Amino acid sequence: MYLLDSLPNKLAADYPWVSSPLIVSAPMAKVAMPKLAVAVSKAGGLGFIAAGYHSDHLEDLLEEAEDLLQDGQADTPVESENGVPKFLPVGVGFITWSASLEKALPTFSRYFPAAVWLFAPPNGFQDLIPWTTKIREATASRTKIWVQVGSVSDAVKVVNTIDPDVIVVQGLDAGGHSLARGASIVSLVPEINDKLQQLRPYPQKRADVLAAGGISDSRGVVAAMALGAEGCVLGTRFLASPESMVAHGYQKAILDASDGGISTVRTTIYDKVRDIHGWPDGYDGRGLINRTYLDDLGGLSEVKNRELYREELNRGDAGYGPKGRLTTYAGTGVGLIREIMSAGDIVKSMREGARKILNEQRQPKL
Amino acid sequence: MYLLDSLPNKLAADYPWVSSPLIVSAPMAKVAMPKLAVAVSKAGGLGFIAAGYHSDHLEDLLEEAEDLLQDGQADTPVESENGVPKFLPVGVGFITWSASLEKALPTFSRYFPAAVWLFAPPNGFQDLIPWTTKIREATASRTKIWVQVGSVSDAVKVVNTIDPDVIVVQGLDAGGHSLARGASIVSLVPEINDKLQQLRPYPQKRADVLAAGGISDSRGVVAAMALGAEGCVLGTRFLASPESMVAHGYQKAILDASDGGISTVRTTIYDKVRDIHGWPDGYDGRGLINRTYLDDLGGLSEVKNRELYREELNRGDAGYGPKGRLTTYAGTGVGLIREIMSAGDIVKSMREGARKILNEQRQPKL
Repeated sequence: MYLLDSLPNKLAADYPWVSSPLIVSAPMAKVAMPKLAVAVSKAGGLGFIAAGYHSDHLEDLLEEAEDLLQDGQADTPVESENGVPKFLPVGVGFITWSASLEKALPTFSRYFPAAVWLFAPPNGFQDLIPWTTKIREATASRTKIWVQVGSVSDAVKVVNTIDPDVIVVQGLDAGGHSLARGASIVSLVPEINDKLQQLRPYPQKRADVLAAGGISDSRGVVAAMALGAEGCVLGTRFLASPESMVAHGYQKAILDASDGGISTVRTTIYDKVRDIHGWPDGYDGRGLINRTYLDDLGGLSEVKNRELYREELNRGDAGYGPKGRLTTYAGTGVGLIREIMSAGDIVKSMREGARKILNEQRQPKL
Repeated sequence: MYLLDSLPNKLAADYPWVSSPLIVSAPMAKVAMPKLAVAVSKAGGLGFIAAGYHSDHLEDLLEEAEDLLQDGQADTPVESENGVPKFLPVGVGFITWSASLEKALPTFSRYFPAAVWLFAPPNGFQDLIPWTTKIREATASRTKIWVQVGSVSDAVKVVNTIDPDVIVVQGLDAGGHSLARGASIVSLVPEINDKLQQLRPYPQKRADVLAAGGISDSRGVVAAMALGAEGCVLGTRFLASPESMVAHGYQKAILDASDGGISTVRTTIYDKVRDIHGWPDGYDGRGLINRTYLDDLGGLSEVKNRELYREELNRGDAGYGPKGRLTTYAGTGVGLIREIMSAGDIVKSMREGARKILNEQRQPKL
């Protein structure tokens, strides 16, 4: 575990505005928009904007982020070199089986987002070679390459294939999409760390390891650090912030849920009813159990289930929750989330809570 | 997180020979015999003997444990009051849908094992009321009541039903049997801790929370402590000790395996081929993927699969591993286990490793 007081050197150099321990908001498709990402970065974390399945509005999103970052000059961590922004202190996430690199590329050389998060290549990690090469070229490596993985073998493959700057290790507790089968960060993070040390003995080791999945408060942050993570990624926790682009009904379902291992499930039915096709084999998504899932379990046809889902859309906020049908992706840590909190306060409370937990260990022995 | 230097008061009082942080070896059926349990307790941990599915040989097992504990007086932590052993510093674990309380009870009032670990009641936690009441009566509460749970709601039910001394919170990473659906300790332990604090505000809180599932080395121990656990339970790690009652082929399969989220699977087929019937609904077991599982996935009939399993038994050690058929229960932390180590050294290395990790945080800020 690195010293809580000081961020690992590489992270400190690459993301100079962040505080230790590094707290990251995940690029949740359709949910993580500039407002959320900027609030997280302004609080000394690193916020990701979801380009998601498409790259259509990326230019608008980054322009919005730039505007928001310039609001309130004192807080703005945009760095500049001779008047040219060195980079935008937010990241952008792509679902790479669906998003278009070619469409996205021009925005990189214009905005220089601090990081790009690549997820779910359709045919293996060699699909990420053009993404990595061209983004590094377009930004003179100002934009750092992050790749999300869910297994030890994938982590090794990624390092050997594209040498990313950061590996986001996603455990099975995570909400939304990930590998359908896997382990939690409890065993994944230390095993991946050990493997990467073998590949590139410290201090030549390149990729930083971040942990995602099930972390909802500062206890999870310290746990992830103890396991060897150099930062933490949270998704579900940020859903319960005003900066998230989710319906009130969604947020209420998050606050109401408890016992996430039981109240959520990994399934592909939530994609199917929303007509999202094309996830590579081996992926599914974790969401709160609702009637869509229960009807699927009960044998209802996909066609009928989709019809019911579409009708449910008319119910708005009332369509969420265990008796509703609207998809509510959430991780197993959902039961630890009990209040709406601003994204900035979430970041700060994680960090302060982590310091408090570890400072207790610094008391002298009685 | 409690101070690493000092065990929480209740644990220190109930298990006076243990050192901080508390390391426990799980009562793995057929595997955790007196030799393992005693080695763990002698090293300042708490070792459990598996009475497992039956209670037939319990008297012999506890007699053997007593003998082993008296070997090498200096290490022996047996306490006595007026020449009568106060308790045997090991625990005993029961699979309660199968084991017989009536058969087990006389051995409790004779040997006073330090703890009894109750798992998987057939019809709900009210089934544990006779176990708890009669064992407490028979031992004047010298034997502490431990119950294993896998969800927040089960933890609450157990506390309200039988007020156990310890709740073992088993995350989804665990090897062997557990709830088929659930979360890892990352979200389970903090949420259960919060719920128990609500039920019984500290310091009246009775049940200590221990974490199990995926922990294979000291990084996992510190993570569990950060999450709020007051001790850690390990199973798979102890399989790779000479004191474990497992075949060399089993141990080799453990050492050879990596990437446990991918190389293991939760399934009921390993029970079926071994003619173990009666696990309550909602349970299955995590083991290394082998031909039994792959053939089941491929549609082979249970009858034929069982036949092949039985033939495989003749192959002995060669019947283990990914190309074999002999059941090899293991948790997702299996990839972190790279050498056979004595059970005592495992306990000590966990403890020393945890201290090392946390002491690094005590360095003054540079």
